[in-house]
Amino acid sequence: MYAKINVVALASRRASLAALCLLSGVGPVAGAPAPEVVAAQLRDAAMAGHTIAYSWVSELTTRFGPRPAGSANEQQAAAWAAARFKALGFENVHIEAFPLTAWVRSTESAEITAPNTQPLVVAALGESPPTPAGGLEGDVVIFPTLGDLKAAAPGSLGGKIALVARRMVRMQDGSGYPVAVDARVDGPHEAAQRGASAFLLRSVGTDSHRIAHTGTTRYQDGRVPIPSFALSAPDADQLERLAALGQTVRVRLVSNASYVRDAHSQNVIAEVRGRDRPQEIVMLGAHLDSWDQGTGAIDDGTGTAIITAALKLIGDLPHRPRRTVRVVLFGSEEVGQPVEPGSAFGGHSYVVNHRTELATHVLTSESDFGADRVYQLALPPAASGSPFAQAALRVLGPIGVLAAPRPAADAGTDVGPSVEAGVPAFTLSQDGTRYFDIHHTPDDTLDKVDRSQLDQNVAAWVALVWLAADSDVDFRTHVPTPPAN
Amino acid sequence: MYAKINVVALASRRASLAALCLLSGVGPVAGAPAPEVVAAQLRDAAMAGHTIAYSWVSELTTRFGPRPAGSANEQQAAAWAAARFKALGFENVHIEAFPLTAWVRSTESAEITAPNTQPLVVAALGESPPTPAGGLEGDVVIFPTLGDLKAAAPGSLGGKIALVARRMVRMQDGSGYPVAVDARVDGPHEAAQRGASAFLLRSVGTDSHRIAHTGTTRYQDGRVPIPSFALSAPDADQLERLAALGQTVRVRLVSNASYVRDAHSQNVIAEVRGRDRPQEIVMLGAHLDSWDQGTGAIDDGTGTAIITAALKLIGDLPHRPRRTVRVVLFGSEEVGQPVEPGSAFGGHSYVVNHRTELATHVLTSESDFGADRVYQLALPPAASGSPFAQAALRVLGPIGVLAAPRPAADAGTDVGPSVEAGVPAFTLSQDGTRYFDIHHTPDDTLDKVDRSQLDQNVAAWVALVWLAADSDVDFRTHVPTPPAN
Repeated sequence: MYAKINVVALASRRASLAALCLLSGVGPVAGAPAPEVVAAQLRDAAMAGHTIAYSWVSELTTRFGPRPAGSANEQQAAAWAAARFKALGFENVHIEAFPLTAWVRSTESAEITAPNTQPLVVAALGESPPTPAGGLEGDVVIFPTLGDLKAAAPGSLGGKIALVARRMVRMQDGSGYPVAVDARVDGPHEAAQRGASAFLLRSVGTDSHRIAHTGTTRYQDGRVPIPSFALSAPDADQLERLAALGQTVRVRLVSNASYVRDAHSQNVIAEVRGRDRPQEIVMLGAHLDSWDQGTGAIDDGTGTAIITAALKLIGDLPHRPRRTVRVVLFGSEEVGQPVEPGSAFGGHSYVVNHRTELATHVLTSESDFGADRVYQLALPPAASGSPFAQAALRVLGPIGVLAAPRPAADAGTDVGPSVEAGVPAFTLSQDGTRYFDIHHTPDDTLDKVDRSQLDQNVAAWVALVWLAADSDVDFRTHVPTPPAN
Repeated sequence: MYAKINVVALASRRASLAALCLLSGVGPVAGAPAPEVVAAQLRDAAMAGHTIAYSWVSELTTRFGPRPAGSANEQQAAAWAAARFKALGFENVHIEAFPLTAWVRSTESAEITAPNTQPLVVAALGESPPTPAGGLEGDVVIFPTLGDLKAAAPGSLGGKIALVARRMVRMQDGSGYPVAVDARVDGPHEAAQRGASAFLLRSVGTDSHRIAHTGTTRYQDGRVPIPSFALSAPDADQLERLAALGQTVRVRLVSNASYVRDAHSQNVIAEVRGRDRPQEIVMLGAHLDSWDQGTGAIDDGTGTAIITAALKLIGDLPHRPRRTVRVVLFGSEEVGQPVEPGSAFGGHSYVVNHRTELATHVLTSESDFGADRVYQLALPPAASGSPFAQAALRVLGPIGVLAAPRPAADAGTDVGPSVEAGVPAFTLSQDGTRYFDIHHTPDDTLDKVDRSQLDQNVAAWVALVWLAADSDVDFRTHVPTPPAN
């Protein structure tokens, strides 16, 4: 499939100069090309590499590195993004701050202490409390799945360290993740209820490197009950093999993580205002915060780059779309406890601040699954199979995007609260085959971004968003009218 | 090429039971099949997976984990190997200890402190001295190559941290390594001579993960002059990009490494004694020690597995070869300073202990380049192109082994001192395309071993070693006589 995409990219590259000449030759609105023609031109410009996406994600990840929620790096990145938005000519650029309790990783380590000494690679799970100052030590009890841990008797893990060793399955659509991640979310509580002193998890990931995949876990009453860590896949293998040799495996764990009670995060907003229905908003989301060990390149620097690059291409057109296109770079998507209910994460804060506007949010989506190629479009139920969908697929088909078998459903963490409040969502599904090799690890760095696939993402987004924003389709309830063609 | 190998493996698997039946049907020496027929049977048995190679490397790396030179883990692994050698029926099994000063990594860390705070992934280079207790901090000066560092004026790096950022080139035969590794070997001294307070190196490796590649560096008068670290490739990229943005990059480095002056390492020896020329020895080497962050699976657990599995197959034959086959598992190949000149590494210690025997070492080689497929055979000059070589290539050709364009030259660290003392060497070149993704990193773990390629290595070794050991070819000087056929 990569080869196919490259052929398209090459063909588009040849066509791009002609396309750009067409764009610059577009006249006033009355004589403008039909929306579908403009969408195809925007698509081709992006496929030819005329986007700011790569330079955006390069500069963001280089200048600020990791951007954990509530950190100075996240705040500096937000200020930089707002300044860049203004320099790009966007409108209504502003930052909306919200309070949160931040979680801060510090030194951490782990080692096997019996039957002999061997170092382990771990990462404390987000919100996980520190160990006692000198660390804690215990025999490891291995459970194949969370279900097996749940089947253990109350009190049966007194003083032990519980390990859930389930392997995540690699799937193009990422559907191996929810099956495996339940152990990360609920494992610490289930282990604590049975007396465990700490919780270990085989990383929820598909790689086999000595790199652990962190992530949040469920907290209740403001806390995770016991120190909890992800183990790298080869380390989990090693513990399983030692146990299979009949050895009792003892492990020592150290974490000096802490909480900052008076932190804040922020959403960064920018728009290209619509020409005749500016109150109607197509809202595009991605998150500016990242986990703390990588530089948040694929999670979610590329998402912020894709939607920003799409907005820039639309803003550079000689005429505006009918509706407003709004970009929101959310803060605190990954981690961060709310100070007051509803005040964090960024997606909740957005709904609190924009509740009265949500009725005129006509469509939304977020880009938060890396930057490998878009292969599928799902529209809201009201638009699925409609003339709008047919037009969109005519534009997106040549760059390898198929119609989804079902309307859009899962909206993602950032725009989820808006969708719950009634805003219709679309999804441009990305190839997630290698996403969970990198997700939530120190390895989430710029070198993992495939530039030509990143540009294909921009092409898909800009074409789809332009079509929606330059239409009067009601994605909520009505059968949409076909776009002018 | 992998597909081709697999086809051969499948074909061999089908043939293997027949081959084994033939083997067990071999009669006394007088009626034994010709050596080339036996070599082919041994090859086919290994290709069919009838080897102990994988279980050996699995148990070694699981039970003992990292085995740094002079460590308890290395000593325990040596005792285990000797016990296993006896259980396998090998002869003359013994351990030869030698003293050394061991180097011990402890906690270490690195971070960018300006223009903002970002964590870095580093690994102290072997023998590198610790930083002051609280770490050291300095502005980074980037040099593209060691040559550029050498061109810097004396004193020009006062208080700075020198970084050599050369990228290693991926090559099948590993020839990208010597070109890049000079910066690791000589960089610390060159930087120190110009006043640098510490030395950084872009990891000598071909991967792009947040994993650093350690390795030794030159020491003089028992010491490396300044704290020296390898940076992971993405971290080196990040420093270069920050510098390209016009930023002065400041870094803080911490290492608590130390030295143990009264340590010891050891070589482990085992044999299958020859039936009529037992004093003539074909000596096979690999090293039991490993770097301290991985479990030494490909460097060099697989090497010890390949030669042990080959010896086991030969030992299980109904008749012995004419000459003795000796396996030596060397200690302290990676790191460790000699207490007295010539007493370490393991390869030197072997020559010291066996100097009088070396004249009857007829041939040697070591396996220390992972376990990906063998593709090329190089024999000593006296045997290149000889009837012996022709017979060997008839047996090895079907499993994808070609004749080398030149006689064997580079003998490796372990058998190198023996070769310098006059022992002829052969080389079975392995595919090193992915070797330097893993080499000297925490990622050197069992999951990186491709079992079918490991067995192909055993097949090549056992066939070649059998042919040499069951012959009377003089590999030193004479034109060898053809093996009986």
